Amino acid sequence: MNPLTVGLIQQRCTPDRDANLEKSLSGIRRAAEGGARLAVLQELHPGLYFCQQEDPHCFDQAEPVPGPSTERLGALARELEIVIVASLFEKRTPGIYHNTAVVLEKDGSIAGRYRKMHIPDDPGYYEKFYFTPGDLGFTPIDTSVGRLGVLVCWDQWYPEAARLMALAGAEALIYPTAIGWDPHDGEEEKKRQLDAWMTIQRSHAIANGLPVISVNRVGFEEDPGGGPGALFWGHSFVAGCQGECLAEAGEEEEVFVAKIDRERTEAVRRIWPFLRDRRIDAYQDLTKRFRD
Amino acid sequence: MNPLTVGLIQQRCTPDRDANLEKSLSGIRRAAEGGARLAVLQELHPGLYFCQQEDPHCFDQAEPVPGPSTERLGALARELEIVIVASLFEKRTPGIYHNTAVVLEKDGSIAGRYRKMHIPDDPGYYEKFYFTPGDLGFTPIDTSVGRLGVLVCWDQWYPEAARLMALAGAEALIYPTAIGWDPHDGEEEKKRQLDAWMTIQRSHAIANGLPVISVNRVGFEEDPGGGPGALFWGHSFVAGCQGECLAEAGEEEEVFVAKIDRERTEAVRRIWPFLRDRRIDAYQDLTKRFRD
Repeated sequence: MNPLTVGLIQQRCTPDRDANLEKSLSGIRRAAEGGARLAVLQELHPGLYFCQQEDPHCFDQAEPVPGPSTERLGALARELEIVIVASLFEKRTPGIYHNTAVVLEKDGSIAGRYRKMHIPDDPGYYEKFYFTPGDLGFTPIDTSVGRLGVLVCWDQWYPEAARLMALAGAEALIYPTAIGWDPHDGEEEKKRQLDAWMTIQRSHAIANGLPVISVNRVGFEEDPGGGPGALFWGHSFVAGCQGECLAEAGEEEEVFVAKIDRERTEAVRRIWPFLRDRRIDAYQDLTKRFRD
Repeated sequence: MNPLTVGLIQQRCTPDRDANLEKSLSGIRRAAEGGARLAVLQELHPGLYFCQQEDPHCFDQAEPVPGPSTERLGALARELEIVIVASLFEKRTPGIYHNTAVVLEKDGSIAGRYRKMHIPDDPGYYEKFYFTPGDLGFTPIDTSVGRLGVLVCWDQWYPEAARLMALAGAEALIYPTAIGWDPHDGEEEKKRQLDAWMTIQRSHAIANGLPVISVNRVGFEEDPGGGPGALFWGHSFVAGCQGECLAEAGEEEEVFVAKIDRERTEAVRRIWPFLRDRRIDAYQDLTKRFRD
């Protein structure tokens, strides 16, 4: 079981949803050829990032879970005997749609799902229109490759989410992501944003003694509403339990694997015993909006 | 009031406690000459880091607050009209000693104190023997240069501490620190540790949209008990509200100033509205030791 080889599939999307899914599937196949027993896809990988505008027609892209995409992904998981973390626009019922990560077990069954808990809403990222906030809590998903702390994109900015997954016994933190630059931003601001995105996720590795796997999309996607569009920055990466970068992609399409030493968590938590010293008697105000 | 110029005093300590305090005072003077209106000292700056062993005689170094050191520091604060964050071994009563940060107002009065909440205990850092855990909670201290979220060293590994300070309206996070390498560690491990230390603190800036000021000591200090001793790594730094490094020291004694743009917090929180989207309905388990 040690090390665990993980595969990350960083891809560009087009309006052709079938082609996007095919690309995800072939990426998983390549990752498996590279030895991966766990494959992680980017957020909402079957399509363009439709949240650049608020358009009720986009709900047509939602699908049930289980549904057509989990069918295809499950069949490949079974064929390759690989665990897959997918990210789908889940239609739960008319009027309730979620941004959902689905974990396929290596026998093709659905091991579990995580519904994105923190929903952003910024210019070009109008997710509160589309995604009902998750109601499954911060609950890791048990699989044959371990207990996976699957979160999604905006969750990555919240130390609370990572901590709750760690406290529930997660053995890795996993973030399917869709994040990019406003092309109008200057180079310094772009650098700060990318660096902050990596730093906050590496900090979750450090605070919790856990590996972190983050997969982001690449490519420029136009805003159908005439806005500046989004230049998705890629840089998918794997960090070890001390926050050190084990592997990192560039800003083009890439399928790559990394080896995670599963014995590092306990070794690091013995020299950095942060969980031991949490002042749980003094944390009650973390459930407040503001302490005023 | 904008920008706020802060001064960081990174120093080496010797067994001569008077000389150490004199060095701190002259460092504050130099920082004030450089325009600083806030000066931050390293953790337990009046002496050697005595927690490398458990020795009841070391309690002799504790002093009341207010006491001799706050007297000297307060006089300088008043003379220079500067706010000072000091770090003292507080004797509260026989048998109750704290690792306490004291904030001196520019009129020389004591603006407030913070008693270290998270207490480490590792080989060479036997703090649980010396320091009673703080009982003042995560409460920022109001001063003429703003509401200061003063924390101490080990607290820097806890996102909870930073968040609680931010939720209480802190305008900056401040960490007097004493952290170093085990000289026996290899270069790669040393690099990971230093990088993790900066990363976790920069992540608090990012998660909360706040500047971070961290001051660490330098120099090798022998372990009187015959252990490997500690090589304090310095690298005191100031980070901006997106986690970007604004100024950073090396591994020798240094007094330096940095300018903090106080309008950045609101500007950054508008483009990164993390506080808006916290799932306070789902955070209750943060007060648990483990979710088993």
